[in-house]
Amino acid sequence: MNRVHGYLGRPVSLTGSPVIDLAQPMRRGMPQSPNHPPFRMLLERRHGDHVRDDGGSAANELIVTGGHVGTHVDALAHVSQAGMLHGDVPAASVQNHEGFSRHGIEEFPPYVGRAVFLDVASVHGVPVLPAGYEITVADLQRAQDTAGVDIEAGGAVLLGTGWSRHWDDARVFTGQEGGAPGPGPAAGAWIADHGVRVAGGETIAFEHIAPGRGHAELPVHRMLLVEAGIHIVETMRLTELASARRADFLLVLAPLPLVGATGSPVRPLAVLPDHDTAVPA
Amino acid sequence: MNRVHGYLGRPVSLTGSPVIDLAQPMRRGMPQSPNHPPFRMLLERRHGDHVRDDGGSAANELIVTGGHVGTHVDALAHVSQAGMLHGDVPAASVQNHEGFSRHGIEEFPPYVGRAVFLDVASVHGVPVLPAGYEITVADLQRAQDTAGVDIEAGGAVLLGTGWSRHWDDARVFTGQEGGAPGPGPAAGAWIADHGVRVAGGETIAFEHIAPGRGHAELPVHRMLLVEAGIHIVETMRLTELASARRADFLLVLAPLPLVGATGSPVRPLAVLPDHDTAVPA
Amino acid sequence: MNRVHGYLGRPVSLTGSPVIDLAQPMRRGMPQSPNHPPFRMLLERRHGDHVRDDGGSAANELIVTGGHVGTHVDALAHVSQAGMLHGDVPAASVQNHEGFSRHGIEEFPPYVGRAVFLDVASVHGVPVLPAGYEITVADLQRAQDTAGVDIEAGGAVLLGTGWSRHWDDARVFTGQEGGAPGPGPAAGAWIADHGVRVAGGETIAFEHIAPGRGHAELPVHRMLLVEAGIHIVETMRLTELASARRADFLLVLAPLPLVGATGSPVRPLAVLPDHDTAVPA
Amino acid sequence: MNRVHGYLGRPVSLTGSPVIDLAQPMRRGMPQSPNHPPFRMLLERRHGDHVRDDGGSAANELIVTGGHVGTHVDALAHVSQAGMLHGDVPAASVQNHEGFSRHGIEEFPPYVGRAVFLDVASVHGVPVLPAGYEITVADLQRAQDTAGVDIEAGGAVLLGTGWSRHWDDARVFTGQEGGAPGPGPAAGAWIADHGVRVAGGETIAFEHIAPGRGHAELPVHRMLLVEAGIHIVETMRLTELASARRADFLLVLAPLPLVGATGSPVRPLAVLPDHDTAVPA
Repeated sequence: MNRVHGYLGRPVSLTGSPVIDLAQPMRRGMPQSPNHPPFRMLLERRHGDHVRDDGGSAANELIVTGGHVGTHVDALAHVSQAGMLHGDVPAASVQNHEGFSRHGIEEFPPYVGRAVFLDVASVHGVPVLPAGYEITVADLQRAQDTAGVDIEAGGAVLLGTGWSRHWDDARVFTGQEGGAPGPGPAAGAWIADHGVRVAGGETIAFEHIAPGRGHAELPVHRMLLVEAGIHIVETMRLTELASARRADFLLVLAPLPLVGATGSPVRPLAVLPDHDTAVPA
Repeated sequence: MNRVHGYLGRPVSLTGSPVIDLAQPMRRGMPQSPNHPPFRMLLERRHGDHVRDDGGSAANELIVTGGHVGTHVDALAHVSQAGMLHGDVPAASVQNHEGFSRHGIEEFPPYVGRAVFLDVASVHGVPVLPAGYEITVADLQRAQDTAGVDIEAGGAVLLGTGWSRHWDDARVFTGQEGGAPGPGPAAGAWIADHGVRVAGGETIAFEHIAPGRGHAELPVHRMLLVEAGIHIVETMRLTELASARRADFLLVLAPLPLVGATGSPVRPLAVLPDHDTAVPA
Repeated sequence: MNRVHGYLGRPVSLTGSPVIDLAQPMRRGMPQSPNHPPFRMLLERRHGDHVRDDGGSAANELIVTGGHVGTHVDALAHVSQAGMLHGDVPAASVQNHEGFSRHGIEEFPPYVGRAVFLDVASVHGVPVLPAGYEITVADLQRAQDTAGVDIEAGGAVLLGTGWSRHWDDARVFTGQEGGAPGPGPAAGAWIADHGVRVAGGETIAFEHIAPGRGHAELPVHRMLLVEAGIHIVETMRLTELASARRADFLLVLAPLPLVGATGSPVRPLAVLPDHDTAVPA
Repeated sequence: MNRVHGYLGRPVSLTGSPVIDLAQPMRRGMPQSPNHPPFRMLLERRHGDHVRDDGGSAANELIVTGGHVGTHVDALAHVSQAGMLHGDVPAASVQNHEGFSRHGIEEFPPYVGRAVFLDVASVHGVPVLPAGYEITVADLQRAQDTAGVDIEAGGAVLLGTGWSRHWDDARVFTGQEGGAPGPGPAAGAWIADHGVRVAGGETIAFEHIAPGRGHAELPVHRMLLVEAGIHIVETMRLTELASARRADFLLVLAPLPLVGATGSPVRPLAVLPDHDTAVPA
């Protein structure tokens, strides 16, 4: 059975704890990767189209989206290397018109547990890391030391780059031309070595994207999804969390159970219980 | 700021607490209302379609869905009465090609807090209530008495009908012909009187649907969404929760922030902290 | 270059010639195969949503559909046998996220030329052939003899079953339970032997569908699409054409150039030029 | 009944006549207006996903599109002025969740008849008119004089700008920044005065779009669709027709019968019968 991870058995005071929304709002025209179907939500019935005898009326919508659009979780089925998915599953044998029969997003048990926030932008004393900046192992260690927290095996780690602040400028945010900050292979290995279950960030791809490179290579995806079996959360909005200056918190990450899909939009939440009991010494 | 609701300030032990998934899996052909766009997820790129020089490959999908498909939350914009949404907002003035500028699902602050489970099927000693059964106020009171819990203002209440057990039989589950069990107007008023923020159940419509009636009238939607401003969660899977025989628990309900939409698919979670500290006396 | 087929060089009088629409109207809920994405058209912008300074306003829509929905043409890419498309093209080598690089519907040069109508229902003296009736070679020969026309190589042949008359009853029309009339393998071979370029009919599948069989086997698709390279038009509305009692006419068949698709909705037209010059002796 | 228009009763020799495709190919990423849902076609089932016992396999696709995407016809429902559609139909009274109950594209009887091609680019001795060039009445008269043809009431007129040649450069083709050539209000009035049933061109909007203006004003749409009830065809590919140097021809324009839609993709065809009989003296 799926269980809450972390907290070392200490009771926490939840009542009244702040809940921070870690998702970007989903609307037509929001920044997203050009490799995925563009998001579109439109009303079908509007109020007044069909009014029941009792004066009631209902409105509804149709939504077209990709699974990697807005804030989302990558399933292990998302990336293969040399034809193999995580655990040496041949990709060709598990993909068809019904999606993936293995490693689809529905196999990810919703994560409820402790997460550590490594604010790399803060370490550098900037609100946003420069486009194309490669996060290093030294960055991650400094962020961890500053926060005074440990990353637990089976836990979650989120990297702060400040990139969420570019959300309203789709050209910059997508980084198609200018690139985007993120972990390079060394930082990716550091994360994998910590044995986390979930790693997340603010950019569209949890990668260091050099200017002009686009998504030509995605080594950290290979290391996390294929080799280590670690799920990735992308396009998170971490600005409010960064302002709260909390190094760890309760993360709830419950992607839609889209059977056979390679990813799903998600509304991650950070719950900040009373600090003294919540953070292990 | 959004905060955790309930628990009266008592610390709870979260570590290792069971997490129960309250969502139905989303796949083509699953039961849904014929009034809403049918769900369809299909792969676009498969592994091998485009292999990068380094041997990596990514798969992705396109998703078409309605906002009221699978387990989902109704926004206040979903239903109007005599042209008015909740709070006397004229529906016609807030709906356009971008959706609703008021009462869209993005206005619902994700709910993290205590929920009470009233298992009406259990009260009647049956695994599933009969199609078309109208839940009464007496049913709710008996369920509450049996459970020995209080429904708090601002909290959440879920009604167990056992209907989730019909999920694999779309004809029965949708209740187009045979109807579906749910609260009638009196039970709806009882729920509204308790001042909850969220009410949920297992059927497609949180209503008593008499056989052959379809969704001709939806009085409980009017009472909750329009009059009381209470959000409704529908098509929940409550069988595992019912088996756990827990009357209250921590509910996390975080629909996608689909700006302007009348509803959103959701993956609700029930976290069951240590009983003795979690349940108020 | 694509050219008009047939008519043996005789001038025809086009002016004022009747034009008969051979397409079924496309709307939500129309009969279609459950194997294909359901058709849905919904308005996005409505008039009044955004009014320009000059008082002008535009409305538009979003359409979700399959390529084999409504009246449509099957591309040669639609069906394979033992992994091979027409002309011994390995299917696996020409299909990817961009569709088919061979035998997609865009490779079909729009057909403008003579078509022969074989009204099998009329031969049997009934308005509609019974569900599950298998059209025989004798039927086709009798229909041809009655009409007094020849089927030309490179031309088009349409079979009348009267099935269009069931359009308003989706349960009957789709034939999922009761079956549908159409050519069996022998009639399929007869059509293929005539070397036509296009064969069409009124049912969803241009096949004899026995009651309760669904689309478990589609031998005529194999014979026409894979072996003979003949395009198939399905779900045509031929009732008005049947009433006109014309055995041959000018058919215009111009599917959308959906690059890489296995089929396309189409609006076929029958132009009925002056009979004396139009029909070869 | 719908009938072939034009040709003054003269017989034409159709056999072997060239058929020119006037549609742009439809594929992901093709140029289109940002105001409309982007086109996307993707395979659902591929060959091999489900192989029948007899070795047969079928592939299919899902298509998402707008009605004004690729080569398409504008229905009269597309544009309103001061809340009114053509014929003083109040737009608000005929639009709902099922589309338009009046002036939808299904009300356009497919056009089969004579069309006149006015090659304005040729008049100016250029392959393509400059971005933002406004076609004048003098241009149209010169083109008509050069061609030596008359525009008939009830007929069709197509304007050549050469813009099709920019198809492979979406940034230029859409004209969002640089504008696009087309008829200004005076030329629009000239066309309307000729009482045609159909007017078409190569750009996304049949308008003069000044650089940097986008679709802020669409006066010719108002004049043709609202005032005159003339249907507009946009994004046509007229390069091959221009090369053929034929001033008139048989146009077949059969948009999909999308009930209630404001437009439809279309595959228009130009049939070029023997010149001496086809073109009136």
